[in-house]
Amino acid sequence: MKLWLGSAAPQAPEGMGDDCSVLKAPQAKVSQLVTADPVIYGQHFNDALSPEQAAAKLLRRNLSDIAAMGGKPTHAVICLALDPSISVSWIQRFYIQLGQEALANEVRIVGGDVSTADNFLGAFLTLYGETLPDTKPLLRQTSQDGSPVFVTGSLGGTIFKKHFDFTPRLAEGQWLAKSGLCLSCSDLSDGLGKDYANITPTGGTCEIDCSLLPISRDAQTMAEKSGKGPLYHAFNDGEDFELIFALHPDTDLAVFLSDWKDEFKTRVSHIGYIRQNSGTETTRLTLLNTTKDFAASGYEHLR
Amino acid sequence: MKLWLGSAAPQAPEGMGDDCSVLKAPQAKVSQLVTADPVIYGQHFNDALSPEQAAAKLLRRNLSDIAAMGGKPTHAVICLALDPSISVSWIQRFYIQLGQEALANEVRIVGGDVSTADNFLGAFLTLYGETLPDTKPLLRQTSQDGSPVFVTGSLGGTIFKKHFDFTPRLAEGQWLAKSGLCLSCSDLSDGLGKDYANITPTGGTCEIDCSLLPISRDAQTMAEKSGKGPLYHAFNDGEDFELIFALHPDTDLAVFLSDWKDEFKTRVSHIGYIRQNSGTETTRLTLLNTTKDFAASGYEHLR
Repeated sequence: MKLWLGSAAPQAPEGMGDDCSVLKAPQAKVSQLVTADPVIYGQHFNDALSPEQAAAKLLRRNLSDIAAMGGKPTHAVICLALDPSISVSWIQRFYIQLGQEALANEVRIVGGDVSTADNFLGAFLTLYGETLPDTKPLLRQTSQDGSPVFVTGSLGGTIFKKHFDFTPRLAEGQWLAKSGLCLSCSDLSDGLGKDYANITPTGGTCEIDCSLLPISRDAQTMAEKSGKGPLYHAFNDGEDFELIFALHPDTDLAVFLSDWKDEFKTRVSHIGYIRQNSGTETTRLTLLNTTKDFAASGYEHLR
Repeated sequence: MKLWLGSAAPQAPEGMGDDCSVLKAPQAKVSQLVTADPVIYGQHFNDALSPEQAAAKLLRRNLSDIAAMGGKPTHAVICLALDPSISVSWIQRFYIQLGQEALANEVRIVGGDVSTADNFLGAFLTLYGETLPDTKPLLRQTSQDGSPVFVTGSLGGTIFKKHFDFTPRLAEGQWLAKSGLCLSCSDLSDGLGKDYANITPTGGTCEIDCSLLPISRDAQTMAEKSGKGPLYHAFNDGEDFELIFALHPDTDLAVFLSDWKDEFKTRVSHIGYIRQNSGTETTRLTLLNTTKDFAASGYEHLR
């Protein structure tokens, strides 16, 4: 395994080979970030994905969580459990790709375990990262009344390809953390229809102008097949792995958007605002400029 | 899940609830230690174990790795994958016990994930620890010619109970790291017959005097059933989760043993020495005071 991971896997004792891996603790005053998500055959991938694509999805979905905190990834531990009948070739291709993806993202793979398990194939990654010096982690629930809300990229129709072939928004998350303008950030893994709540604090509602949503071409294609409309797919397909974030209410949006465009080719869309609910109101999601049918469907999904 | 883990699971953002957990990096100049081992139904446990026993085994087998480095545990991430038919009661009991074991060992459970998987039940733990201030991690391959070799506790017959009901030798490992006398340490998970190699450097042999081996009562019981002799079981049963360690060759053993007894009730046995091989000799294990039958069997097992 260590061989296949290539130079992403350091020598012991930093890497595998002793009872534990031994890592230097970060020197600067940073926070460590930890996330853990698996890919399991039948749940997160199937025979339509190559081992390379499964490995890419595994690392990238974890990287997306580090991106959502504005951090940079540092190291990972990978535990595999698999049926003895799974071919060495599959395993080898999986590890080789995982090593290459890790290397490209400056992630050292420092530990791991391989176990047998009947009729099962799953890979469990624990990914560590850290905040950049002099930045704070981008938390979820710290947006304010009047915070403008943005998403990166475009949404929906991810089943065609994007659910495994996406770019974690690491550079964008780090830039947001450095900007000091971003109050709250999360990544869209369950779909905007659920994950808007991540950046909507208790007592607040997320007001989304549906005419501003960046709907992907694949969501349009899905809509032609399903008849449910592109908005439905943009809200509910999930696995977009884009960032949703809320800025300080006083942010000069023209300057922000101009700075963003100077820095990134990645699309960014201002889709709405965080609003404080008044009195006993408990609305969590307010949709503007949408069809009645979709709104009903959206709310159904959310409850 | 977080509720069931009780006070072992801190609030977000240190605990679960954001895209990542946010941890303060260690302040002192320590090394971080990382290990990851799962328990999988059908491999590491079965219906003979209660959910509490499975949870205890999961945490303890990882704690044993931290112990083998002379470290103290700090935090853990737990990923569960399970068939939807598994009862809520099983899961609840598993998490409650995991939380209690974690609390007793000052381990914070900071992250986790639960996935469904058909016909599968497995729990994957990544455990972090750190070295004590002013101590170095106890590595495996750093013993010397003439290093006396010790094991804690007694060996073999672990299938009866010890494979899940054991005490990780954390206090002993930390004491060894602080002593400055210990050159090399590992834990016995695959049995002495395999794991002696962990503390035997390249070009060396581990010379074990079988008359000095601490053979457990359960190994005696196993031997009565199997006819293979108690030594066979002490070497080959595995899952002892005791420490094997090698001291500096100049150590005053009488003083060491006296200090140990002042500190611990845990048995410690001086079972042999690390010897440098001469010339082209490639022996890795030398057994003294053993029966011819066992020696042959032992060597067979090792090759």
